[in-house]
Amino acid sequence: MQHALEQLAIVMVHTSHPGNIGSAARAMKTMGLHDLRLVCPTRFNSPETRALASGADDILEQAQHFDTLPAALADRQRVIGTSARAERSLRWPQMNARQCGEFVVSQSPPQKTAIVFGRERTGLTNKELEYCQSLVHIPMAFDFFSLNIAAAIQIVCYECMMSARTQIPAEAGPAPDTRQEPAATTENLESFYQHLEQALIDVRYLDPDNPRLLMRRLRRLFGRTLLSQSEINILRGMLSAFQGRKFTSRSS
Amino acid sequence: MQHALEQLAIVMVHTSHPGNIGSAARAMKTMGLHDLRLVCPTRFNSPETRALASGADDILEQAQHFDTLPAALADRQRVIGTSARAERSLRWPQMNARQCGEFVVSQSPPQKTAIVFGRERTGLTNKELEYCQSLVHIPMAFDFFSLNIAAAIQIVCYECMMSARTQIPAEAGPAPDTRQEPAATTENLESFYQHLEQALIDVRYLDPDNPRLLMRRLRRLFGRTLLSQSEINILRGMLSAFQGRKFTSRSS
Repeated sequence: MQHALEQLAIVMVHTSHPGNIGSAARAMKTMGLHDLRLVCPTRFNSPETRALASGADDILEQAQHFDTLPAALADRQRVIGTSARAERSLRWPQMNARQCGEFVVSQSPPQKTAIVFGRERTGLTNKELEYCQSLVHIPMAFDFFSLNIAAAIQIVCYECMMSARTQIPAEAGPAPDTRQEPAATTENLESFYQHLEQALIDVRYLDPDNPRLLMRRLRRLFGRTLLSQSEINILRGMLSAFQGRKFTSRSS
Repeated sequence: MQHALEQLAIVMVHTSHPGNIGSAARAMKTMGLHDLRLVCPTRFNSPETRALASGADDILEQAQHFDTLPAALADRQRVIGTSARAERSLRWPQMNARQCGEFVVSQSPPQKTAIVFGRERTGLTNKELEYCQSLVHIPMAFDFFSLNIAAAIQIVCYECMMSARTQIPAEAGPAPDTRQEPAATTENLESFYQHLEQALIDVRYLDPDNPRLLMRRLRRLFGRTLLSQSEINILRGMLSAFQGRKFTSRSS
């Protein structure tokens, strides 16, 4: 599936600010893309470009320069244009960034694909859009506002990479508990609760004749936290200290 | 669901480059966030900041400035730290950016949440991470490379906004939380940790001259459990009882 990302080119058309090209190179590199194509940038080789590329100099050095968009797209099998708004036109199939990532990665066999980004202020012309088979837009909270072009490239590359990764065994679930320490057993826990209850009775915080819901609330609190055995030992050590005693953990 | 985004603050700690603050403001605005908090930026009010904010001047003007991270987090009920790598530590529950977006939006009722971004080069310190209950990382193609901070903020805000749009009542997220009690704020928690530390010093369980990792371990333990305000009151009442004093919760 990495293959799909290797087949994917980012094309920047008439970019005005050299810093945006550097930021775009960095954005691509973080997500595993390397084929950057530049159509008539206003300026390219400025210190700002390299400063913002920040380690993605290889992408800049290998970037190909073209005089026209069709030249930049010559070897491409699929061309996706970017549009600031979803509703710009009904003439092209529309995707949002997530759907675009899925589309790019799911092509079988992988197709040589380009995603084309237009000018900072005005985007792609209608003539340039004619080279595209579909359009991608990035959902935003406000339709009247616009993303920086490097930020847009970052999100689109991120979605392609995320889509490529989902084919790979997922890295981490929603992460309930990744600790490696052995979890407390019920026996550990019950001993702790008994110890806690006794300590609270000792200091008259808990009245055994009128316990109300205190222990139930504390069980709920500590029950949520999935204590480890060594944490139980710490907590019981604290309780013993409060009681003026020494706690020695039983080696179970 | 938009409500969740309104409850979400982005905290930038010791940001070096003023341009990154401007880009972050623009990134937030595109995705419908507006609560930006700055902890000791090296420079803030530069022409570059405003140029890169590009229409998000309102976010910059309303941005709050703080001298310390705990001050910036005082009113927050959930704090998520950012980490460059998934494997940085197993001590916190980990989420990727997409899971983070789902978590933020699916909190019911919505919680006052902060996502904390560290220094450009070095991220968050271990001490700063202690204020966080979970960590988010952005998957990348190369673990040895890093995202620009504004690009990272862009992706995280994008994922939150995407999650708010899909409005799926997600069951995902660290530690399913079905309680209706108001969650403790960072201020509540910090007062509790101070109280706990003092109580442990009083009974000589904790040696202030050689504290080792005890408080860090206890922060981790209680950080996982997502304490409510009334549970904090119970715990502090217990501590006061152990200390032989009465604890009266501040009404606030």
